[in-house]
Amino acid sequence: MNKIDICLSPDLIHQYDLASTVVVVIDILRASSSITTAIAHGVKAIRPVKSLGECRELQLLDHVGAAERGGKRVGGFDMGNSPFSFMNPDLEDKKIAMTTTNGTVTLHKSRGALQVLIGSFLNYTALLSYIKRLPCDILLHCAGWKGKVNLEDTLFAGAIVHGLKQQFEFDSDVPQMAAILYAQAKNDLKSAIQSSSHVTRLINFGQEKDIDFCLEMDRYKVIPVLKGNYITKLKLSDMLF
Amino acid sequence: MNKIDICLSPDLIHQYDLASTVVVVIDILRASSSITTAIAHGVKAIRPVKSLGECRELQLLDHVGAAERGGKRVGGFDMGNSPFSFMNPDLEDKKIAMTTTNGTVTLHKSRGALQVLIGSFLNYTALLSYIKRLPCDILLHCAGWKGKVNLEDTLFAGAIVHGLKQQFEFDSDVPQMAAILYAQAKNDLKSAIQSSSHVTRLINFGQEKDIDFCLEMDRYKVIPVLKGNYITKLKLSDMLF
Repeated sequence: MNKIDICLSPDLIHQYDLASTVVVVIDILRASSSITTAIAHGVKAIRPVKSLGECRELQLLDHVGAAERGGKRVGGFDMGNSPFSFMNPDLEDKKIAMTTTNGTVTLHKSRGALQVLIGSFLNYTALLSYIKRLPCDILLHCAGWKGKVNLEDTLFAGAIVHGLKQQFEFDSDVPQMAAILYAQAKNDLKSAIQSSSHVTRLINFGQEKDIDFCLEMDRYKVIPVLKGNYITKLKLSDMLF
Repeated sequence: MNKIDICLSPDLIHQYDLASTVVVVIDILRASSSITTAIAHGVKAIRPVKSLGECRELQLLDHVGAAERGGKRVGGFDMGNSPFSFMNPDLEDKKIAMTTTNGTVTLHKSRGALQVLIGSFLNYTALLSYIKRLPCDILLHCAGWKGKVNLEDTLFAGAIVHGLKQQFEFDSDVPQMAAILYAQAKNDLKSAIQSSSHVTRLINFGQEKDIDFCLEMDRYKVIPVLKGNYITKLKLSDMLF
């Protein structure tokens, strides 16, 4: 039986053998939700970059620049990290260079995996339908906050474990822990994460509507996938079965 | 208000500023339970060492040697890591050199803290009574398994958070997560950890009675503390208030 595990922080990713594993990157508030939204709304490709400098260079070249640090949009860039800004029809068929506090770091640290997917509540069922048929191990890679474990990413990982039921064997105690936390929270996710550190931070920045949006289940059917330097929409030919 | 946080793995300890913090080292199965048992039964001092080589040298010198790797006693040493072996009256007033897969690593990585305590269900209330009066931040440092997060250490950390109630502010989402997991599990800890990875491992090695013992609440009133190279019993003069 293939295995499923959860890496609760990018600072723990060295513990996992990625080469034979499909990794799902999770940064619910907000990078993975925003990437899902962008791909669903017709953005051609997103290039996740680690530094503001790289993002600026690509913006100067031919990309739209999206930059966030500490929960806020960075001055001098076309946009920040709010999922609503990625719905803009002007972005259709455009390439976006994106850098965020946690999500883009997590994407980079997932390189070397058999395939790197992006998961969020917004594309939960689409993602689940694909990964439950995968003939290999799965690692759910939570972005957390500056290396620290956070609640909302763990809850989403728990939702995936919950959805996969007995089809994968747990490779550590974490899938069980995350599934218990999700079972407790699932009837009212908003209340469950109300006192989480990043929710408090975003509400202080006036971004509560982003939180409501990022907790919406199954708004989109797309699965973003990282191929080379770019995130695009998973196509039939990308599927590993 | 002072803060409480939980470091779920020694691989995450670099994220914390230890200098102004009291750290509680948690390795329920079995190092922190065994250390508590040893100190309660009159062992003079325990020297946690990282390598089998160091442990052997100290055994040759004047220490009793206790060595465990992968859940098993290592050949050539006086004893392993079962709490029952530390009850031996012959150990009274002796010095023990101890090396284990996870617990001793976690102790070493906690160095630099204001004070390093050892916690287990066996000394839960004694530990809680002391730390709830501390005038500083507290970090609960879970040993996990080879850097991976585990259930039983997280549950004990959750028990501490539960016991401290509102006296400390949470410094990340992890205290909330651990407290939820503990609340779910507390009425039957044994069942809750039944399918955890290390419980399965220990049961396969015929060590089920160790698990039952390590889940006993408040068998002892001692608090082991790391001072310099040795763990001894916390005395009135060691108390930070």
